[in-house]
Amino acid sequence: MDKDQLNDIVAGIAKNYSEREEIFFTDPNKHFPNKLAIVNIVKDLRRVMFPRYFGDETPTGINPEYFIGETLIRIEDSLRRELREALLFRGGLATEELDARVDQICATFFSRLPEIQRILLTDVQAAFDGDPAAQSKEEIIFSYPGFFAIFVYRIAHELYVQDVPLIPRIMSEYAHGRTGVDINSGATIGEYFFIDHATGVVIGETTTIGNHVKVYQGVTLGALSTRAGQALSGVKRHPTIEDDVTIYSNASVLGGETVIGEGSIIAGSAFVISSVPAGSRVSLKNQEVNVRTPNKDHAKCWEI
Amino acid sequence: MDKDQLNDIVAGIAKNYSEREEIFFTDPNKHFPNKLAIVNIVKDLRRVMFPRYFGDETPTGINPEYFIGETLIRIEDSLRRELREALLFRGGLATEELDARVDQICATFFSRLPEIQRILLTDVQAAFDGDPAAQSKEEIIFSYPGFFAIFVYRIAHELYVQDVPLIPRIMSEYAHGRTGVDINSGATIGEYFFIDHATGVVIGETTTIGNHVKVYQGVTLGALSTRAGQALSGVKRHPTIEDDVTIYSNASVLGGETVIGEGSIIAGSAFVISSVPAGSRVSLKNQEVNVRTPNKDHAKCWEI
Amino acid sequence: MDKDQLNDIVAGIAKNYSEREEIFFTDPNKHFPNKLAIVNIVKDLRRVMFPRYFGDETPTGINPEYFIGETLIRIEDSLRRELREALLFRGGLATEELDARVDQICATFFSRLPEIQRILLTDVQAAFDGDPAAQSKEEIIFSYPGFFAIFVYRIAHELYVQDVPLIPRIMSEYAHGRTGVDINSGATIGEYFFIDHATGVVIGETTTIGNHVKVYQGVTLGALSTRAGQALSGVKRHPTIEDDVTIYSNASVLGGETVIGEGSIIAGSAFVISSVPAGSRVSLKNQEVNVRTPNKDHAKCWEI
Amino acid sequence: MDKDQLNDIVAGIAKNYSEREEIFFTDPNKHFPNKLAIVNIVKDLRRVMFPRYFGDETPTGINPEYFIGETLIRIEDSLRRELREALLFRGGLATEELDARVDQICATFFSRLPEIQRILLTDVQAAFDGDPAAQSKEEIIFSYPGFFAIFVYRIAHELYVQDVPLIPRIMSEYAHGRTGVDINSGATIGEYFFIDHATGVVIGETTTIGNHVKVYQGVTLGALSTRAGQALSGVKRHPTIEDDVTIYSNASVLGGETVIGEGSIIAGSAFVISSVPAGSRVSLKNQEVNVRTPNKDHAKCWEI
Amino acid sequence: MDKDQLNDIVAGIAKNYSEREEIFFTDPNKHFPNKLAIVNIVKDLRRVMFPRYFGDETPTGINPEYFIGETLIRIEDSLRRELREALLFRGGLATEELDARVDQICATFFSRLPEIQRILLTDVQAAFDGDPAAQSKEEIIFSYPGFFAIFVYRIAHELYVQDVPLIPRIMSEYAHGRTGVDINSGATIGEYFFIDHATGVVIGETTTIGNHVKVYQGVTLGALSTRAGQALSGVKRHPTIEDDVTIYSNASVLGGETVIGEGSIIAGSAFVISSVPAGSRVSLKNQEVNVRTPNKDHAKCWEI
Amino acid sequence: MDKDQLNDIVAGIAKNYSEREEIFFTDPNKHFPNKLAIVNIVKDLRRVMFPRYFGDETPTGINPEYFIGETLIRIEDSLRRELREALLFRGGLATEELDARVDQICATFFSRLPEIQRILLTDVQAAFDGDPAAQSKEEIIFSYPGFFAIFVYRIAHELYVQDVPLIPRIMSEYAHGRTGVDINSGATIGEYFFIDHATGVVIGETTTIGNHVKVYQGVTLGALSTRAGQALSGVKRHPTIEDDVTIYSNASVLGGETVIGEGSIIAGSAFVISSVPAGSRVSLKNQEVNVRTPNKDHAKCWEI
Repeated sequence: MDKDQLNDIVAGIAKNYSEREEIFFTDPNKHFPNKLAIVNIVKDLRRVMFPRYFGDETPTGINPEYFIGETLIRIEDSLRRELREALLFRGGLATEELDARVDQICATFFSRLPEIQRILLTDVQAAFDGDPAAQSKEEIIFSYPGFFAIFVYRIAHELYVQDVPLIPRIMSEYAHGRTGVDINSGATIGEYFFIDHATGVVIGETTTIGNHVKVYQGVTLGALSTRAGQALSGVKRHPTIEDDVTIYSNASVLGGETVIGEGSIIAGSAFVISSVPAGSRVSLKNQEVNVRTPNKDHAKCWEI
Repeated sequence: MDKDQLNDIVAGIAKNYSEREEIFFTDPNKHFPNKLAIVNIVKDLRRVMFPRYFGDETPTGINPEYFIGETLIRIEDSLRRELREALLFRGGLATEELDARVDQICATFFSRLPEIQRILLTDVQAAFDGDPAAQSKEEIIFSYPGFFAIFVYRIAHELYVQDVPLIPRIMSEYAHGRTGVDINSGATIGEYFFIDHATGVVIGETTTIGNHVKVYQGVTLGALSTRAGQALSGVKRHPTIEDDVTIYSNASVLGGETVIGEGSIIAGSAFVISSVPAGSRVSLKNQEVNVRTPNKDHAKCWEI
Repeated sequence: MDKDQLNDIVAGIAKNYSEREEIFFTDPNKHFPNKLAIVNIVKDLRRVMFPRYFGDETPTGINPEYFIGETLIRIEDSLRRELREALLFRGGLATEELDARVDQICATFFSRLPEIQRILLTDVQAAFDGDPAAQSKEEIIFSYPGFFAIFVYRIAHELYVQDVPLIPRIMSEYAHGRTGVDINSGATIGEYFFIDHATGVVIGETTTIGNHVKVYQGVTLGALSTRAGQALSGVKRHPTIEDDVTIYSNASVLGGETVIGEGSIIAGSAFVISSVPAGSRVSLKNQEVNVRTPNKDHAKCWEI
Repeated sequence: MDKDQLNDIVAGIAKNYSEREEIFFTDPNKHFPNKLAIVNIVKDLRRVMFPRYFGDETPTGINPEYFIGETLIRIEDSLRRELREALLFRGGLATEELDARVDQICATFFSRLPEIQRILLTDVQAAFDGDPAAQSKEEIIFSYPGFFAIFVYRIAHELYVQDVPLIPRIMSEYAHGRTGVDINSGATIGEYFFIDHATGVVIGETTTIGNHVKVYQGVTLGALSTRAGQALSGVKRHPTIEDDVTIYSNASVLGGETVIGEGSIIAGSAFVISSVPAGSRVSLKNQEVNVRTPNKDHAKCWEI
Repeated sequence: MDKDQLNDIVAGIAKNYSEREEIFFTDPNKHFPNKLAIVNIVKDLRRVMFPRYFGDETPTGINPEYFIGETLIRIEDSLRRELREALLFRGGLATEELDARVDQICATFFSRLPEIQRILLTDVQAAFDGDPAAQSKEEIIFSYPGFFAIFVYRIAHELYVQDVPLIPRIMSEYAHGRTGVDINSGATIGEYFFIDHATGVVIGETTTIGNHVKVYQGVTLGALSTRAGQALSGVKRHPTIEDDVTIYSNASVLGGETVIGEGSIIAGSAFVISSVPAGSRVSLKNQEVNVRTPNKDHAKCWEI
Repeated sequence: MDKDQLNDIVAGIAKNYSEREEIFFTDPNKHFPNKLAIVNIVKDLRRVMFPRYFGDETPTGINPEYFIGETLIRIEDSLRRELREALLFRGGLATEELDARVDQICATFFSRLPEIQRILLTDVQAAFDGDPAAQSKEEIIFSYPGFFAIFVYRIAHELYVQDVPLIPRIMSEYAHGRTGVDINSGATIGEYFFIDHATGVVIGETTTIGNHVKVYQGVTLGALSTRAGQALSGVKRHPTIEDDVTIYSNASVLGGETVIGEGSIIAGSAFVISSVPAGSRVSLKNQEVNVRTPNKDHAKCWEI
């Protein structure tokens, strides 16, 4: 670029800044929460809940209360800072209200941790029962991406139900980026939940899932498409999955009024947009099988 | 390993080196472009386009031209170095031609940035209209992986159309690795494009997509399989998607002559290898639903 | 949190520790292998096999044996340490047995490297023949996630067949996290294997795959669901894919007795749970196509 | 440690916390400025002043104003944050006063930069004239620790004269740690100043130095010892060095009333605690030289 | 280098390896302690002793016992590992003895921490009384290199007195590298010790220092030179400094029988190799001052 | 800053750029060698020479030639790049000359390594004989800063004698920054050289030092001051120290014609600017000792 061309491009981009508030929001008090800080909160919570699995400094048995207490104090310190940024970003709170909200969110959030830890152990049990390839429960906690995604969901959900903006989204997208599993923090998910192989699973904001449900990779529990945008915000748009349902790989179950009855099995690639009763087996119709002589000439074009 | 065994293995690998040019190309002037440098170019372009979203040092409003100009100069400096490596890797250019090509690529590329920035705002709008769970446009820019994949595609595409080797691929695979979305930089994609949930989407090199198209996770816009390899290079092998089409999760649309007519809707898991007219709804045939008593004994083997 | 509330939460978590061995295993001699060390072993093996592709310090042609030998010595040093941790974690070996096992695993593992390198070149060839968008074989080695996943599988498999615990899993999940491809290290996979676009592919532990097989993104070669857990450990639960088969995007082939005969083609989204003979084309039945007037009013709700 | 012993030690340290405010100051609004941020301010200022010497992204000649402007905006953003912390740490300012103080400090500080840059070039010239081993002026800017220490002093001094707490100290100690040169930011130092070899030089808070002064390693311009502490705060306790003085290695010049007259030369190891007139040569008295037979038996004890 | 030359050099170096045990000690069970781990132990101890000064995560006042306890557990875990390496490196201990020694060292070391913390506060007080430039005690703790060197000495000394090999040396050299102060961990130093400006101070292994002593930069408390090497190991070779002594910059006090009597003052650059009684002022003899006309022609050669 | 003020400051600095070539040298082909790369060359050479001391991956005894060879190839690769930059920075070489010079420098430099390694072992021996506090030769290699400074000097000197610009300086300043020892790479230093405690030692460019010389911290072997600058470049300006000399702390020996005869001993703080014969003991004259009553009131001002 020569100097004139550079200046033209700069002017073009600066013009976009000045015309579009989305690009360059000018309120100096709005900042996004810090993604790295939130990721570290997630990691520290994981170390508190499964203390000898992650991180170099594994606590010994001398006095684990020191470890738990010190880590929670540090997490709270960091979480408070990010909560404040997130609430300021959305706006509409006076300073005193802000502090009170942060206090209340933290108190409720941290008091839930022992119970979340208990529920996560039911998820470990479900994975151990559901996957013969797992050699131990420790292996599941240590390395299963589906379990990691559920862990992050269960944390993020506790903030979602307290109407915290942005932070649950950042947590979900962190898990999404690492595992390919996109569970909206608004979903309601029961105990003994198992996601096998993980990649490509999508679970929408208003989904309800019972106990002992198992889904495979690529499963979508989603909404019917809309371009009405925000008009549907808050409406139940995603399905209800009752207890003991199994959904195979790449199946899609869509719609807020769709209920998959207790104990049903949904075949892979199924596309379900209406309810089915308890005990259903949903499968695709008659696949055709045509036999012809196998083509072994690899240099030729293969078509279906 | 003892010393003899080690020496044998070393000899075996060294033999492979000497016999196979793919493993150990001996031309000392061939180097791959630097992946990290290219990733940083992508990140810096993102900061120029959405300046208060990413990175610690957010520009104030004092004089944003300084920020834009300085960042572009730095990007150009880095891009020039990588362009040179990429063109040298492919070979076939005299030194003076090389410099002229780099000049021309940069001049064209940077002059497109304000327009790309404008188009990206249409993509933000499409996501905002299409996802009731989005609380603001800012949240989309800040955290939606589908939007990130489109952003990287729009950048990489500008280099692809100028016949730059390797760098568009590195950019695409960077986005692919982070989001699970594999958009070949050769695809042609209109405005107001929205990829919801993102993971598993594949869009092939010769795909053409109109305006206001929406695709869900797991959608493939691909080619029919070939083992003819390079003979098909440059031929249109991927489909054409007209305006206002919606494609649900895990559907596949394949083939260079396949056209999905304007306003069509493709159901999840559909496998489409021939054209459909405007206004089509393509769905899977009659799924079977068999009801039986739900099996609540979790210790038993469940079969479909 | 005030001091009382904090102490209550700490006590609750500490109680979970003391009651559940999965959370806080108290055997001081059990440690997980180090994930980062194992990732570095994978990266170093990649540098030995494809020496001018990855890492700053590319060997010159002066004396590549030094490079190979030194890198292998370093890898062995690191691998031995992790093998020891992994075997100790599972337990049941006396100290002398442990050393002998580590010696034997290393000797066998390293002696396989030249052959693995040779097979990987057949995979590169398959990708080059199968993807017209690939501009060179170098581009495949350098940037194709499917090839990376196969590379990691072929390494991890050599440890799996020697009954090494945990480390093959860590390797597989590393590749899984980066590429969205989950190949269990227990699978048996022939030469000239190509995974196109990669994201969402799952290949189970007891899968057998022949030569010249090609699978697309989202393909599952899996098991039928079970909740019987460890009772099925070691049983063949995943399908057999014979030579020259092509499987399109998002198809699922499940079950230990399912055999896809030589030269077959499986359409996208197919859900196959029983065997098909050689030369089969498996596709979904009659998709319905209903045409209606395209709805161009983007503000309205679109339904399928 | 067993649990009892640990708890005793913890209690002992906690008791120290509660009794000594220096250890654990309880005011939650007091934080130290961030050392790393301040080090980065120093580095960024160095890049603005000597733009092609430090850092990867060297500006090209296209439009250096963009580089300067953008870097200064970023520095100001960071400096404001640290100034606020430093002023809050000292306390005593109302919120509005705080903002006004920060505004004023920044306005004055940044307006001084072009002049500081000019003076630093006189220091480069002095080093070039004074050191035959310097191959170029660029080598001095790029690698001389004495020049680096002077650079940091000249920056820190501008904050000291505006009564900024803590930050000038952090800057000085950063230079001290890297070069072994401890120049208190309160000192007043003229143009064409050269510190050769650098290590061990100490220049106290109330020192005054003229133009064209040269000091060698180990030189102290200090105070006479006191244990009266803060009673002497603000009093001139360090010497005055007039123009054109040279001070050799390890000499000490002490005391607030000590003046080294113009053009004087102080010998190495001299210990000067009273004034000397212009043109003095200060040296140590008659060193004794006793000759004896050299002892070549290295195994024996050597004494002086 | 061509291949022959390379191979010759390699052979030359390998020959040195095989001939000189210092270069390449072949005992596979000897490893040096890890320098980084030891540096982190020092840093963590500093955070325990001065908890709101260093590190991002400053404990709040809720329950500092959690912070202290958890940090000490982590430090002990790390210190045990390094103690084991250091003792193995020296050799001569059976395995059970090793464990018992490590237990004992840790128990004694940690029980000393509250007392060390108390003594360090006397050093802070001495610095505050002795340096009018210090604006607060906090500034001394936060940023004075002399205080940092004393802190590290007081920690390392506790390990020295328990005959721990290598680790005290690594700690001392860490402080030496950062501050230019080389205090051998074997020295015995009383309370209220102040090192002003720090750089260049050397305090030898068998030095004894009383209370309320103040030394300036460049002061050596050393030994007379020997080439008798290890024959003098353990003999008192360094001086004794009684209470209330002040030693000015660059003075050297040498010899194991040299005693500086209570309340003495040693002038800068003094070289003292025999004892002086209490209340002495030791200074250099009559410095000559010769006056001549100052030479203002900077282009001329200046001589002393 | 407001916009106007910012623009003024930017203009002021830009004006300095345009007027002073030192600040902003405009030749686009001049770049400084990369400091980090050069530091890594030093570290890698240290690992080759003392292979089990530094770095995680210590070679086993299987085949150390692989380790040596591979490390040397990598060092040469990196050194060649930096040599090229350094020679281009000075300018005056045609491209072919440049390559020939780099070849020749490398060939000579690497062939010297086995001999340098041998000489370094004499330095280790001298330290072991000279310091009763050293517990082993390994401890000296592993942790003595004086030995590190000599190591770097011996490397840098080999480049200096081949007239390599800038790189020897960068090496020296790296050692200087870490140890406080500034040995100009041009100095000529014999075998069995020992620098005890290290901080503050300066050894000038044209110094000549014999065998078995020992210097203490703070010793200067320097030049008489000049402001004639480059006119003296290349002239011998620093002293000659013959065999078996010992120089105590903070002594200065200056001048190109000054010769310290064999076996001499120079007392601490001595300032020597003329030659002394073999066997001299140089000491300071009659120090005065005045005794008075020690002042124990620490609150009073103490004066010398």
